[in-house]
Amino acid sequence: MKNRQSDHSRSGATVLGIDVGGTNTVYGLVTEEGRVRASETMPTGDYKTADDLFQALKSSFDAWDPELIHTVTGIGIGVPNGNYYTGEVLSPPNLPWSNVNLVNLVADIFSLPCTITNDANAAALGELLFGAAKGMRHFVEITLGTGLGSGIVADGNIIYGHDGLAGEMGHMTVREGGRLCGCGRKGCLETYVSAPGLVRTARECGFTESREGKSEKALTARDVYLAARNGNAAARDAFRITGEILGRAMSDVVAILSPEAIVLFGGMAQAGVFLTNPAQQALDENVMSSFRGKTRFILSSLDHNSAAVLGAAALFFQR
Amino acid sequence: MKNRQSDHSRSGATVLGIDVGGTNTVYGLVTEEGRVRASETMPTGDYKTADDLFQALKSSFDAWDPELIHTVTGIGIGVPNGNYYTGEVLSPPNLPWSNVNLVNLVADIFSLPCTITNDANAAALGELLFGAAKGMRHFVEITLGTGLGSGIVADGNIIYGHDGLAGEMGHMTVREGGRLCGCGRKGCLETYVSAPGLVRTARECGFTESREGKSEKALTARDVYLAARNGNAAARDAFRITGEILGRAMSDVVAILSPEAIVLFGGMAQAGVFLTNPAQQALDENVMSSFRGKTRFILSSLDHNSAAVLGAAALFFQR
Repeated sequence: MKNRQSDHSRSGATVLGIDVGGTNTVYGLVTEEGRVRASETMPTGDYKTADDLFQALKSSFDAWDPELIHTVTGIGIGVPNGNYYTGEVLSPPNLPWSNVNLVNLVADIFSLPCTITNDANAAALGELLFGAAKGMRHFVEITLGTGLGSGIVADGNIIYGHDGLAGEMGHMTVREGGRLCGCGRKGCLETYVSAPGLVRTARECGFTESREGKSEKALTARDVYLAARNGNAAARDAFRITGEILGRAMSDVVAILSPEAIVLFGGMAQAGVFLTNPAQQALDENVMSSFRGKTRFILSSLDHNSAAVLGAAALFFQR
Repeated sequence: MKNRQSDHSRSGATVLGIDVGGTNTVYGLVTEEGRVRASETMPTGDYKTADDLFQALKSSFDAWDPELIHTVTGIGIGVPNGNYYTGEVLSPPNLPWSNVNLVNLVADIFSLPCTITNDANAAALGELLFGAAKGMRHFVEITLGTGLGSGIVADGNIIYGHDGLAGEMGHMTVREGGRLCGCGRKGCLETYVSAPGLVRTARECGFTESREGKSEKALTARDVYLAARNGNAAARDAFRITGEILGRAMSDVVAILSPEAIVLFGGMAQAGVFLTNPAQQALDENVMSSFRGKTRFILSSLDHNSAAVLGAAALFFQR
């Protein structure tokens, strides 16, 4: 059930970066230069509580090369609903856990200092230290997947807000009375700009099962992407509409935050220009003139496989 | 043409706070405790260039009590379009100036270190150091007047954005194809939530000149406020609608920034609960549940007469 990779070269202190996902928990040792020296993956769902998961993780970790273990100075964790201020994880979506103070739990188990945040903030910090936003002081990271997450970096630091919950751009209202969102409200950005949002828009554009030979239910954002690449008009329309909605929403974000870049991260970001071109055009058409042409949509440059671990580790480096 | 007030008590270092407005330029010496020890007002429009204005200001300043002058450690300036990073004032609205690097100019004239920002950021810093946001780490200041300005404080610091232009919440789009804005776009928040926006909404609600005995053109936000206080239904409707639009827009801002409070500043804020009640209700009805009831609309507690000078001085104290 585990998948282990190691790198026995040495270069000083490391941070244990842990990304808790609904399916897998990935963890690895990351150097200050952003090199992943060892990593493992565990199936999150095999463990009913956070305590079970992190006890098992500690056992695996203890089996690593003692020389590697010796380099670890702290732990950074990216976890859905992770609160940077309190260390708590409350009502985490897609996790079987009850509410828990994860910082206390993990610091006890590992006897190491520990910091947590949500996955979008971790992605933003990974981008800042090791990715496409290296050297930027002001940018927004947008994570696209089942939903739309965001991490805001202003003057080199994450904006956490007064309660640690800032950065919920997926729940900006972009259509009055629009699509019903998982949050219970209507017209949230993530009901349009996310993998399921794109698929729904594609269907609305006439992208049908019969044309692609798959049941509607099984249709994925990747199917829409592949069809768009092959010139399918409905699939291209879906990306254009999705990009436009993103660009328009970001014109408000730019007026508020004036970031240098909006970095797209996650599976859907692999659609590249199918998403960034209409988004950039809609942003520049809709934003106030003093901001026009100054904020770029760019793609994450973090390696897809190590991005989550890099982001989690970056949180501790940046604390 | 000048109006001078002095206070000869002494309590250490002061900052010269200068607020450049379209009509008047107000300046004063402010102590670290937020006391204004001396202040003067000059008519901005009497001077064709920034150099003329600040040379005249320096002459007045030099006539102050030498003991007071001796306490000044630096200069903070709030000015429309003032850029914190560059020190420049580009295309300032309502000022006859051409583009100028005001920091260089003022530092030369006064031989003192100088910092500038726009008036909304200065108001936010005044609120942070001396007003209703004292002790807060995360809040938004909304300045209501001819337009809607905003200053964002995150973790105790102003968010300037990558180019110094962040905080233009007045130009969030709240109505697709809505009212034409001075910025050339349509449906900007400030076309609804501002003094002229309120007056226009009041007229749309049937608040007419014949009823109030004034020409439509001369109608002011204060007229609408006084009528609302006297129970005029159209005037109350206008405030309710204006507050609702503000509250809905702020539900997006809260999802992005999660501030502890939204502080209303400026003449229109004197309408108090006529504005804050519908705004708070619309915010709590529209915001995502995890933010509900956590961000309060409050009113600025800065003295109206000294607020601008306090804000400008706060900029230097906070630099």
